[in-house]
Amino acid sequence: MNAEILCVGTELLLGDIVNTNAAFLSRELARLGINVYHQTVVGDNSDRLKKSLKEALENNDIVITSGGLGPTYDDLTKETAAELLGLEMKFDEVSMKHIEEYFRKINCQMTLSIKKQAYIPDGAMAIKNDCGTAPGIYIEKNGKVLVLLPGPPREIEPMFLNYVSPLLQKFTGNTMFSRTVHLFDFGESKAETLLKDMMTTLKNPTVAPYAKDGEVLLRITAAAENKEKAEEMINPVIEQIKSIIGSENIYGTDVGNLQTALVQKLKEKHLKIATDESITGGLISKRITEVPGSSEVLECGVCSYSNRIKHEILGVSSETLEKYTGYSSQTALEMADGVRRISGADIGVSTTGIAGPGGGTDEKPVGLVYVGISTENYSFTKELHLSRGFSEERELIRYLASSHALYLALKCADEKF
Amino acid sequence: MNAEILCVGTELLLGDIVNTNAAFLSRELARLGINVYHQTVVGDNSDRLKKSLKEALENNDIVITSGGLGPTYDDLTKETAAELLGLEMKFDEVSMKHIEEYFRKINCQMTLSIKKQAYIPDGAMAIKNDCGTAPGIYIEKNGKVLVLLPGPPREIEPMFLNYVSPLLQKFTGNTMFSRTVHLFDFGESKAETLLKDMMTTLKNPTVAPYAKDGEVLLRITAAAENKEKAEEMINPVIEQIKSIIGSENIYGTDVGNLQTALVQKLKEKHLKIATDESITGGLISKRITEVPGSSEVLECGVCSYSNRIKHEILGVSSETLEKYTGYSSQTALEMADGVRRISGADIGVSTTGIAGPGGGTDEKPVGLVYVGISTENYSFTKELHLSRGFSEERELIRYLASSHALYLALKCADEKF
Repeated sequence: MNAEILCVGTELLLGDIVNTNAAFLSRELARLGINVYHQTVVGDNSDRLKKSLKEALENNDIVITSGGLGPTYDDLTKETAAELLGLEMKFDEVSMKHIEEYFRKINCQMTLSIKKQAYIPDGAMAIKNDCGTAPGIYIEKNGKVLVLLPGPPREIEPMFLNYVSPLLQKFTGNTMFSRTVHLFDFGESKAETLLKDMMTTLKNPTVAPYAKDGEVLLRITAAAENKEKAEEMINPVIEQIKSIIGSENIYGTDVGNLQTALVQKLKEKHLKIATDESITGGLISKRITEVPGSSEVLECGVCSYSNRIKHEILGVSSETLEKYTGYSSQTALEMADGVRRISGADIGVSTTGIAGPGGGTDEKPVGLVYVGISTENYSFTKELHLSRGFSEERELIRYLASSHALYLALKCADEKF
Repeated sequence: MNAEILCVGTELLLGDIVNTNAAFLSRELARLGINVYHQTVVGDNSDRLKKSLKEALENNDIVITSGGLGPTYDDLTKETAAELLGLEMKFDEVSMKHIEEYFRKINCQMTLSIKKQAYIPDGAMAIKNDCGTAPGIYIEKNGKVLVLLPGPPREIEPMFLNYVSPLLQKFTGNTMFSRTVHLFDFGESKAETLLKDMMTTLKNPTVAPYAKDGEVLLRITAAAENKEKAEEMINPVIEQIKSIIGSENIYGTDVGNLQTALVQKLKEKHLKIATDESITGGLISKRITEVPGSSEVLECGVCSYSNRIKHEILGVSSETLEKYTGYSSQTALEMADGVRRISGADIGVSTTGIAGPGGGTDEKPVGLVYVGISTENYSFTKELHLSRGFSEERELIRYLASSHALYLALKCADEKF
């Protein structure tokens, strides 16, 4: 089965928004075992939309569109599709009821134009929108499937997962199931070199690497008739990867991300953490508190951007700040100790360094970062050089610094308690 | 002039990465006054790539590709383009020198396969890559322009801005120039209703709204022969918008975002700020410290996730915490006061509330947030209800809470000092 994803919206062609829907739909179709060979974007223009829709239906079994289902004059996806397929538009009572319910739920006045959203092509099936007003539309005609979905990511994602995915599953029989092995601070090319044989020879399950900002994810995907069978195929491959890469370099399997892995580990061991962030400015505590339930493990975070605060609140000694500066291993260590002490947490973690663009010197260049870890019986710091020499890398340096801090805290929680 | 953007990469079709290149290129082409009616994505497959490239060249004056210029066997954009246009590949000495220099700069061993990147189609011009090894390629043939660019955003963005944009400018004569008016906490539909006449009647400059997570941006775009002429056309429209919307609802023009506007305002008034974050967990200080030079204005941030820390470090009274709970207006006020006092900052800002998914009650539901603002002579809190009833809205609630806090701090800095 082949599918094309056709996203409709002038805001995409102007670059006002990034096309996250195409990525989401592609990922979900891959999971269903449906091939996507093309993604296309067209604007809110009836002629060009009709041409693209026609070509997509000619070349594919399934076409999925996003966008252009709203109530305004430039929302014309379903009218264009109906015209192309020779279908009349008809009023759908059930969709109208859902729209009315939605407005009651969010306690808002319904505008008149909204009624346009309850019209669907004759013979089509309306798909309920749990997070908005425009219903999705499912059409099977001449052996082809056309699915029209709304544009906002918060509407399309639950609609696809809850209602569309089950409809499409009947075409593939098999489901795709994946598990993900997470590496941090382990070069992508090193992982690829070590696992090259596996990646090129294995067909089911497959092994694919995906690198992003310091992390390498290895995704092992099997096609099987159910999840249990898929897992039986995947698990030996994970064991093989562990034996090749070394399990000390793997921080988790299916753990989502570093902050989720850290929160899980802290909960498991009944530990509390506290952060003191200079260069990362709150990003570590922000990432930890992304995880629901993190209040059980995060005692306190401080963003001690000035030396005065480092000294007065965290207790970093004036001597250290004067002799070694705020950007030093010694300061990082005293920051981690300090925040652990004032908060009463089990683990203190700190960051200090130079994010740029200004503030770097030959001796202390942009990208120099110290991460500190402190527990009652064990403290250390790690010096990092995170600049890649690009012009706008402030946020990348801060993000990588926060990832290293989360990773080192995770290692510490795992090994020292 | 019409252009198509053709992005090449199986990782895009699998949804492993989001296509930020298409958004970037679209935005930059719009700025040059070049129309984009289509964006297409194809995988690393020679036949499908050739078909898409052929169609794109037939239907457009300019085609810009991203991706597939790397050193491995599945990078085949330039070879496919050369074949389609009937051009031989030739070795480019200058590109090879740049590649060698790049490896010296990042202090890495050059692999043999990298030499493939120095081959370009005969008659083409190589475009220097300042942030990577694969050169871009510029071809003019049969009245069409084909530009092949690398895939990584960190390579394509500086390459386009520094080298490609000047090459394309000759085709348009006019440049597009935009200014952006920023609204916060002012509904998109309200803005659209008030400005509908302007948006539909004005042709040059145009007025377009763009809404995202609590903010509405109004972009006024003029096509003119230079920046000065464009500004003369745009500025009266901005004045008109201010008189319709009310300037008290506009937090800035061309200010980038809330945190940048806040840091600028604090610098201008020589003020220091301190944050105490419960629900936002460090996101406010993270956003403030995104702005280069924010160390001048951010004194200290605290993430006081537990009541114990709210009491012991920030001085929120036990009575308040017991009587009103940690999620209350009273607590928010004492948090803002407390962090201002311990840090010695001019403005203290705080957040507390319930981000979910758990922890909500009938009386204190998920999405209930209090923002506190404290100065020496003036303190207040604002109660917000930020839930939209979606299932995965924890990060949205936290983001909106941080935006409200930044906005209220900005208003306070502007009006009370």
